[in-house]
Amino acid sequence: MKINGTPYRTIWPEGEDAVSVIDQTRLPHAFAVQRLSSAEDCAHAIKTMVVRGAPLIGATAAYGVALAMRGDASDTALDAVHDFLLATRPTAVNLRWALARMRDRLRNQPQEMRAALAWAEAAAICDEDVVTCRAIGEHGLTILRDAAANKNGAPLNVLTHCNAGWLATVDWGTALAPLYMAHDAGIPIHVWVDETRPRNQGASLTAYELGGHGVPHTIIADNAGGHYMQAGAVDLAIVGTDRVTANGDVANKIGTYLKALAAHDNNVPFYVALPSSTIDWSLSSGRDIPIEERSAEELLKMAGRLPSGDVVTVEIAAPGSPGANPAFDVTPARLVTGFITERGVAPATEAGLLSLFPERKSS
Amino acid sequence: MKINGTPYRTIWPEGEDAVSVIDQTRLPHAFAVQRLSSAEDCAHAIKTMVVRGAPLIGATAAYGVALAMRGDASDTALDAVHDFLLATRPTAVNLRWALARMRDRLRNQPQEMRAALAWAEAAAICDEDVVTCRAIGEHGLTILRDAAANKNGAPLNVLTHCNAGWLATVDWGTALAPLYMAHDAGIPIHVWVDETRPRNQGASLTAYELGGHGVPHTIIADNAGGHYMQAGAVDLAIVGTDRVTANGDVANKIGTYLKALAAHDNNVPFYVALPSSTIDWSLSSGRDIPIEERSAEELLKMAGRLPSGDVVTVEIAAPGSPGANPAFDVTPARLVTGFITERGVAPATEAGLLSLFPERKSS
Repeated sequence: MKINGTPYRTIWPEGEDAVSVIDQTRLPHAFAVQRLSSAEDCAHAIKTMVVRGAPLIGATAAYGVALAMRGDASDTALDAVHDFLLATRPTAVNLRWALARMRDRLRNQPQEMRAALAWAEAAAICDEDVVTCRAIGEHGLTILRDAAANKNGAPLNVLTHCNAGWLATVDWGTALAPLYMAHDAGIPIHVWVDETRPRNQGASLTAYELGGHGVPHTIIADNAGGHYMQAGAVDLAIVGTDRVTANGDVANKIGTYLKALAAHDNNVPFYVALPSSTIDWSLSSGRDIPIEERSAEELLKMAGRLPSGDVVTVEIAAPGSPGANPAFDVTPARLVTGFITERGVAPATEAGLLSLFPERKSS
Repeated sequence: MKINGTPYRTIWPEGEDAVSVIDQTRLPHAFAVQRLSSAEDCAHAIKTMVVRGAPLIGATAAYGVALAMRGDASDTALDAVHDFLLATRPTAVNLRWALARMRDRLRNQPQEMRAALAWAEAAAICDEDVVTCRAIGEHGLTILRDAAANKNGAPLNVLTHCNAGWLATVDWGTALAPLYMAHDAGIPIHVWVDETRPRNQGASLTAYELGGHGVPHTIIADNAGGHYMQAGAVDLAIVGTDRVTANGDVANKIGTYLKALAAHDNNVPFYVALPSSTIDWSLSSGRDIPIEERSAEELLKMAGRLPSGDVVTVEIAAPGSPGANPAFDVTPARLVTGFITERGVAPATEAGLLSLFPERKSS
């Protein structure tokens, strides 16, 4: 996607010594690029959310392995960097997927070839993510086109939570890819952007993306989506996900469950867009997904722009009051209308997932 | 309640020329008192949320009438100040109730007595609010005591949204009154405090109140309550309300509906605490309640403390992105376990309400 007319991905190689990423902790107040030269740099970027979004976390970790292989490409080093990067964030399964893919690719290769192979594999993960997200967009576009057909030319109102746009992936995004394609196809759409406390990825990243692409949108408090659904002002909801279990349960940014409940209560279709790397076939229920607990500071402090343009961090809550900050929740499959994947759309059930990915059927 | 050991109400007369109120727009960063000397001052304080909370809005409006009567006590002036104050905020019905009560009290009295009578009536509204809230607290305490009996000494976890504490009333509060009484009675409780975006009345006012009284509590993002309910970490929820219709539908701070849905989905009892002045017997359904739309600035900007202690306002969202800010939503009666009123507890149905207020039965 473009920023001020220049096409960007969220992560790109700098020669073969480093990768650069857009520093998402500084958006929307400043556009800055951070250079990552080691697995440690990559781990730090993931932990501090310089990069975030399940697919982008996976891509960054893949480059982390590749950067580590330039120093020590032994089996021991490979296992160590795998485990080191895996420990950065617990909920998104794309991280585990990307790291397993890198290790599997390198394990049986000669050590002297591993650095170059790893670099190529990380690049392949990124390129495939773009292809995958474009396919998700096209499948989602069909849903949006059908929904828009019932609107008699009025804008189709779509609600989204957090950021599952191009900033969460390498390019295009998952939940937002269909919206970009619909907008580009001339389908009138309007997006309700959940602010997404405590880190405000909606107000800071999704709004930034949509604004940059010219897509009409309105930021709302996370509290407001149910009200707009009751009022008939939401035609459908699309969100991303950090992990889907084999039965169709969905871990996603904290608060997704509440929107899914409201959608269900108001007969608003609720879609989840994901690449298949987000499916954790090893878990049979969302109850088993580890939920990351992050620092309460993310809740009790907030960064923003002063009238001078300076960016400062302020404390917003009652002094001395503690906070708690679970980063994800689990939406039961029963509340999800369908999954939008790179292979098409399916019901949020085990059978639905297997209909798209029959190779996963146990014999 | 006490602030640093000094007992306060939220509103109190200063001689017979003015009333003072705690400036709630400056909490939790500073404790400041604002003096209101005219109906215009009172209207401004209500509109800008120097005072907020349905019962306190009503009390402030009552003093606004009384202050107006000191100048011109004619019928015309009485009607004018009634209408002027009624227009300040549309959703909370206590405002209408208090203004109607003031006008009814004064209408048939000699003009020269109206100022003094109005002053006494406003004081009576305040004193009665304290009595009413104490009674709500006692009825709610019974519920908390019963719930705590099942906890084997572990703290009872109660979730609340927005601020329905003593700052929302003249003293004690509605939803928080039972919590203060339970804490004082030695029942171990812990309160999950919804931050309550966009104005953060939970993080700034409820946390301030609970901290001041020594009640264990944790601030959470509005997004997090559903997750904690799924995890079994919420034993019950209690919220206040700005208007209850005759069928038991509940208008309250935006986001209440989402928590009620989650409570229902997880079999968590969901109580609404209210004085009977919050019941709008003239409306048969929550669909007819006007929902106040406030400035998007409340969402897109945020006040907080710098490390220096200075309080500044920062812009937090993507530059140029619009916002929308509905201040309330309506929770259908079917999601409410019961109403806690000054006359006791009743199911959230028309029959339930009428069982407590039989004088409202149509003949």
